[in-house]
Amino acid sequence: MKLATLRNGTRNGKLVIVSRDLRSCIDVATLQMALDAWSDFNPVMQRISDDLNAGKSLGAMPFDPKSAMAPLPRAYQFLDGSFYLPHTELMSKWRNMPVPSVFFQEPMVYQGCSDPLLGACDDMVAGPDEWGLDFEAEVAVVMKDTPAGTTREQASDCVALVMLCNDISLRGLIPHELSKEFGFVQSKPPSAFSPVAVTPDELGAAWDGNLLHRPILATYNGAGFGCANAGKDAQFGFRDLIAHVTKTRRLGAGAILGSGTISNSDRTTGSSCLAERRAIETIEHGAPKSPWMKAGDRIEIEMLDDEGCSIFGKIDQRVVKAM
Amino acid sequence: MKLATLRNGTRNGKLVIVSRDLRSCIDVATLQMALDAWSDFNPVMQRISDDLNAGKSLGAMPFDPKSAMAPLPRAYQFLDGSFYLPHTELMSKWRNMPVPSVFFQEPMVYQGCSDPLLGACDDMVAGPDEWGLDFEAEVAVVMKDTPAGTTREQASDCVALVMLCNDISLRGLIPHELSKEFGFVQSKPPSAFSPVAVTPDELGAAWDGNLLHRPILATYNGAGFGCANAGKDAQFGFRDLIAHVTKTRRLGAGAILGSGTISNSDRTTGSSCLAERRAIETIEHGAPKSPWMKAGDRIEIEMLDDEGCSIFGKIDQRVVKAM
Repeated sequence: MKLATLRNGTRNGKLVIVSRDLRSCIDVATLQMALDAWSDFNPVMQRISDDLNAGKSLGAMPFDPKSAMAPLPRAYQFLDGSFYLPHTELMSKWRNMPVPSVFFQEPMVYQGCSDPLLGACDDMVAGPDEWGLDFEAEVAVVMKDTPAGTTREQASDCVALVMLCNDISLRGLIPHELSKEFGFVQSKPPSAFSPVAVTPDELGAAWDGNLLHRPILATYNGAGFGCANAGKDAQFGFRDLIAHVTKTRRLGAGAILGSGTISNSDRTTGSSCLAERRAIETIEHGAPKSPWMKAGDRIEIEMLDDEGCSIFGKIDQRVVKAM
Repeated sequence: MKLATLRNGTRNGKLVIVSRDLRSCIDVATLQMALDAWSDFNPVMQRISDDLNAGKSLGAMPFDPKSAMAPLPRAYQFLDGSFYLPHTELMSKWRNMPVPSVFFQEPMVYQGCSDPLLGACDDMVAGPDEWGLDFEAEVAVVMKDTPAGTTREQASDCVALVMLCNDISLRGLIPHELSKEFGFVQSKPPSAFSPVAVTPDELGAAWDGNLLHRPILATYNGAGFGCANAGKDAQFGFRDLIAHVTKTRRLGAGAILGSGTISNSDRTTGSSCLAERRAIETIEHGAPKSPWMKAGDRIEIEMLDDEGCSIFGKIDQRVVKAM
């Protein structure tokens, strides 16, 4: 089943079930309402989804990703991890620090901004140049009610939905903020999400309950920038992250968890953020050449199925100047 | 106006307006709904509140704080600051570190767990002893819609409600987690809030738009433990914190901001958490004597007005063993 939230002038938007080909959709309620009573809503919505995909729905209307808010336009929690070793290696190099040994022992995770969450085609707003605006292509999951003390083995049953994320970062503000030890606040403004969130069954064998084994395609200003496989080079996955964060809290329905920037050790797969490319340029040429994002830039983030069709719809954002 | 949220079997509870003396209340909607359209709801609710306080409400029923959930049982954001220098001095001493110079330059703030938020009389759950369960008496505010780039001068107009908080901490997990630089996650389980949230006008001159100039009374196992004045010894206040966090994000209606543990340089005011008392014991006797909280312990947190009446109702929690 594929779900999206359309703009309707309210803060929570209007939930629609989207056809597998992303061409049509049909009304339901709000996604938070559905998640709050998921075991009731899920089978009903699945039947509507099956009819929609079979072309049997009378109420179907065309689906326009530009009308989509984030699948959850505001959430009660966004815990963003950092699964991928090649990303951490490059970011540590950028900060002239070793990879922290704790990275190999347990998931890295911070609590990010969960209100607002941006729609897939919402603008990114550029502040001063020295803030260092960057994108980050990630996989994210939306949780069902998940009790405290959930084990790795129980964790994947608690995932309701999978989606893509552009975890927007202000690189210029990160080193100072991390040195405060209290985590990212100013350096992580609201992030954007794919137009469509999908139930794990839509992903077939590509989703193993821990990682999504497909390339995430980042296209920057019209040129291919990265195609790292989200199933490779991860030190930890969602199962580990869920067990880690539920050690001392339950997760309410609708909590979002993120993978961190997807990155592969095979450099021919490119990068999922500018900071990595700049770190590689520094290693190879002594200094970064690529500038941070500026007004007019465009980032597209997408994932394709075996037939080359978009699974989640495309994150497609342009950078505009702050007014 | 004073507001509370009563248990009614739903996740968001039922909003009631509470009389000034905390004895009676009357139904409205949910607090998030009211905050989402605050400029519409506020004057209507204020009239109902005025009638209730004048004893003119037909629909009034007795108010029982034990029925209260947190005023917002789940919120889209909880940004917890650390305003008070004496607390930071003692916590730095505990960790054998100097007070970070950044503490004097800008607000310290991390993003905490905002789903669930505990009711004032909900139990605290004790995990393993080495987690080091502790309470922290704080002041918190609930925001109206607050745009990105809000200045200090504009900030206090964006505060909708004020309440008290027990920011529950797992001291044993903090040093390791802070060393990861990504902020508190496991070490800050869900916090508890006073039964009642009040509009700033209820606080008179004690609320200056930045700090609440009254003692916060912490009673531990029936004995006075702290009475630090929340208006004293603060390096920063809510105005500063709002300007700081809105540098790169807007705050949606219902975002909660916290003051951090209230602490005065005058040691005769006691402490608002066990960690401070243990740090003082270490300074005075070479080692801490007070144990962390354990099953059966009780913490009460309250603030009184000039007549000795409770402003927010009492946070009154007992510690139970994890099942």
